[in-house]
Amino acid sequence: MNTLDAVLDRIDHDLDASLERLFALLRIKSISTDPAYQEQCRAAAKVLAQDLSSLGFDAGVRPTAGHPAVLAKSGSGSGPSVLFYGHYDVQPVDPLELWKSPPFEPRIDTLSDGRRVIVARGACDDKGQVMTFIEACRAWKAVTGSLPLPITMLIEGEEECGSKNLGPFVEANKKELRADIALVCDTGMWDPKTPAITTSLRGLVYDEVKITAADRDLHSGLFGGAAQNPIRVLCKILAAIHDERGKITIPGFYDGAKELPPQVRAQWAALDFTPENFLGQVGLAVPAGEKDRLLIEQISSRPACDINGINGGYTGEGSKTVIPSQASAKISFRLVGGQDPDKIRDGFRAFVRSRLPTDCTAEFISHAGAPAISLDWGMAKLAAAQRALTQEWGREALLIGSGASIPIVADFKRLLGMDTLLIGFGLDDDRIHSPNEKYDLTSFHKGTRSWARILATFAA
Amino acid sequence: MNTLDAVLDRIDHDLDASLERLFALLRIKSISTDPAYQEQCRAAAKVLAQDLSSLGFDAGVRPTAGHPAVLAKSGSGSGPSVLFYGHYDVQPVDPLELWKSPPFEPRIDTLSDGRRVIVARGACDDKGQVMTFIEACRAWKAVTGSLPLPITMLIEGEEECGSKNLGPFVEANKKELRADIALVCDTGMWDPKTPAITTSLRGLVYDEVKITAADRDLHSGLFGGAAQNPIRVLCKILAAIHDERGKITIPGFYDGAKELPPQVRAQWAALDFTPENFLGQVGLAVPAGEKDRLLIEQISSRPACDINGINGGYTGEGSKTVIPSQASAKISFRLVGGQDPDKIRDGFRAFVRSRLPTDCTAEFISHAGAPAISLDWGMAKLAAAQRALTQEWGREALLIGSGASIPIVADFKRLLGMDTLLIGFGLDDDRIHSPNEKYDLTSFHKGTRSWARILATFAA
Repeated sequence: MNTLDAVLDRIDHDLDASLERLFALLRIKSISTDPAYQEQCRAAAKVLAQDLSSLGFDAGVRPTAGHPAVLAKSGSGSGPSVLFYGHYDVQPVDPLELWKSPPFEPRIDTLSDGRRVIVARGACDDKGQVMTFIEACRAWKAVTGSLPLPITMLIEGEEECGSKNLGPFVEANKKELRADIALVCDTGMWDPKTPAITTSLRGLVYDEVKITAADRDLHSGLFGGAAQNPIRVLCKILAAIHDERGKITIPGFYDGAKELPPQVRAQWAALDFTPENFLGQVGLAVPAGEKDRLLIEQISSRPACDINGINGGYTGEGSKTVIPSQASAKISFRLVGGQDPDKIRDGFRAFVRSRLPTDCTAEFISHAGAPAISLDWGMAKLAAAQRALTQEWGREALLIGSGASIPIVADFKRLLGMDTLLIGFGLDDDRIHSPNEKYDLTSFHKGTRSWARILATFAA
Repeated sequence: MNTLDAVLDRIDHDLDASLERLFALLRIKSISTDPAYQEQCRAAAKVLAQDLSSLGFDAGVRPTAGHPAVLAKSGSGSGPSVLFYGHYDVQPVDPLELWKSPPFEPRIDTLSDGRRVIVARGACDDKGQVMTFIEACRAWKAVTGSLPLPITMLIEGEEECGSKNLGPFVEANKKELRADIALVCDTGMWDPKTPAITTSLRGLVYDEVKITAADRDLHSGLFGGAAQNPIRVLCKILAAIHDERGKITIPGFYDGAKELPPQVRAQWAALDFTPENFLGQVGLAVPAGEKDRLLIEQISSRPACDINGINGGYTGEGSKTVIPSQASAKISFRLVGGQDPDKIRDGFRAFVRSRLPTDCTAEFISHAGAPAISLDWGMAKLAAAQRALTQEWGREALLIGSGASIPIVADFKRLLGMDTLLIGFGLDDDRIHSPNEKYDLTSFHKGTRSWARILATFAA
């Protein structure tokens, strides 16, 4: 039996004990958004630091301006170094009455299709996922007496409340954190049988616009018909952002948006990613994006614009015949490839200003601006991780794009110059952030085995 | 000296005493919206009923479901009968600190341009205006021993809080209230030297629309680009209501909107009603309505559509990357001529539904639907009142349209079959509803004289 097989064998035989360790972590009510659980957050950090110390890591609970982070470094070793990121904090549990069992009393349940699942708050997001990596390390340590390569672990406690102290923490601990590559286990598989690596994240520009017309609210009986209405002006401008084909009309908007490599597009076109499967779960049926693009492109490899909020005039019960002085909207742009956040924001603002009638002014507030992240599709470690996942699951691991933005990945790139491989074992039906969160036992078990393989491949 | 001259002479000599009577009424804190002033409202009604009794009216304080109304009928008499309507209640006074003198301690002030004004809450709206009519009656009674024609007076106490008990009161007292014509003194002059009769009021259709897309709020990172966004849909629809020329594009919308008689349009075109004068006071410069219409048409004789409120998604501080499930707007239409409120509402709803993409539904709430009111331009009493005003002020009295809607006028028409002449002496700078409300002494004095003349003309 070669070393990797021995490690995998160890994982299989240790499954019950590894579940016990996960359950112990799940019992800690580390809800980061609610100050009442501050001590429980600290307790979760301590448990993890102690566990990592027992594996030979130099591990500690490190203060931040908010909940502490766990920082752990393995001893020296040969091979490329990796930084693993995860989070020990969890979402609140309300509405509590919708839970079938207490959220912090983890249990194994069996679904109607026979899948066995771990049910608890944090079972998937992110305690279960974090433990797949730690259990892989434990098995390596047990079999070989050491880890196969130098590993640094960063497990934060504020992911569910915005990670606002994480950037400064990374900045302040650059030297300790820098590694050859970052690994994040907080994403999902393609489906219960198909592993995936998320290779791109969309960037984000989030702007707020406020349009002012008259210098006071007016009575629509007296002024209606003659006075400029800022809601009408705002609607006209926002309505002009998308054309009839779903394309964004802001000049220069698509500059830097790259086309998919042909092999990736072919892979995606062959997927069973249908409106029924994806949109049907939320009561929709027809993709609303660019008409000449695959649905999966619309949500991951193509930029998009959404109006996230709009407000103006009287919005209470009943009616009020007012022409308001102001109306405002929050608009976000999801960016891909090399789209420049500054240029996108400037282009949007110029688009608004060019459409303003006389008598109206526009003010803007910038809420976010971050570029898209995408891995070099030819990166050696990406191919290595893909091979390892394919071997474990018996299915070609997919390279997918996520439409969302995960700021830590941009921070790793910007502050540490590191690329990140996003590999996770969550499933669409895990109900993260919702009652009865679960994590498939298969995700936990084969996820652990996947990491053992990935570490072996990297170390080889 | 003929009778009318004697009556006018009496008014002139009685001015100081009539001001004392107005001041006594102004000292009563009859704020109808605040329950703390319930007794003061009743007190104002009592004072008026007693005063009218002293003039020979059969007057009483009549209960309603809210504040009482004053109903007074003069003895029999020859000539056409009139119903006079006004209100004794006043607006709240806050912000109190902006008043230069206590709002219920009336005083005479002199403006920088030499105009003498009565300063108090209700000085114009509507106690001062009501008293011009009562003082005219008093002078007639003093000089001739009787009124020149049968007069019924209805002075309500809930105009400033929506008049919600007035319709039922009119319905329940039809027989007592019915007269040949109604007179309302709650409107304004064209300018300080030019009297006016308001001959049309726009109607109102007020509808609320709520558009629903997905069955829950979505994350714009995960769904952005593919999921229908109801704010975007709503903006597209609302933006389509007006074309580039300011015309409303809803099919059939203008059905029933009549053109002005040529002589009225010529009169209006000759007015110094400029964007600078009208829009300049609220910080605007360019009329936003139908480009081929006079500004005064845009706000009075032409229909209009305004978005009075819009709401959707996240509207708090900062940002949230949500694609909301729903977005809603409140939309009102000002109607003119024979535009049918039901058809306008149905047309709007069909317009919305025809533009809904697949995956979106629309729900509607109706908040109001009332037709426009317009007098027959050739009506004899209108011409008579216009002559009387012209004689008093030495300037041709203008026939103007008001863009607003006054429900009691529609009630008089609908329930009693009566036309209403809206004649008032308020000015644009009277600050009704605001601190330091005033009424020009000239408005009070010459307003009283105007009513004396109008009653004489009607009785002739």
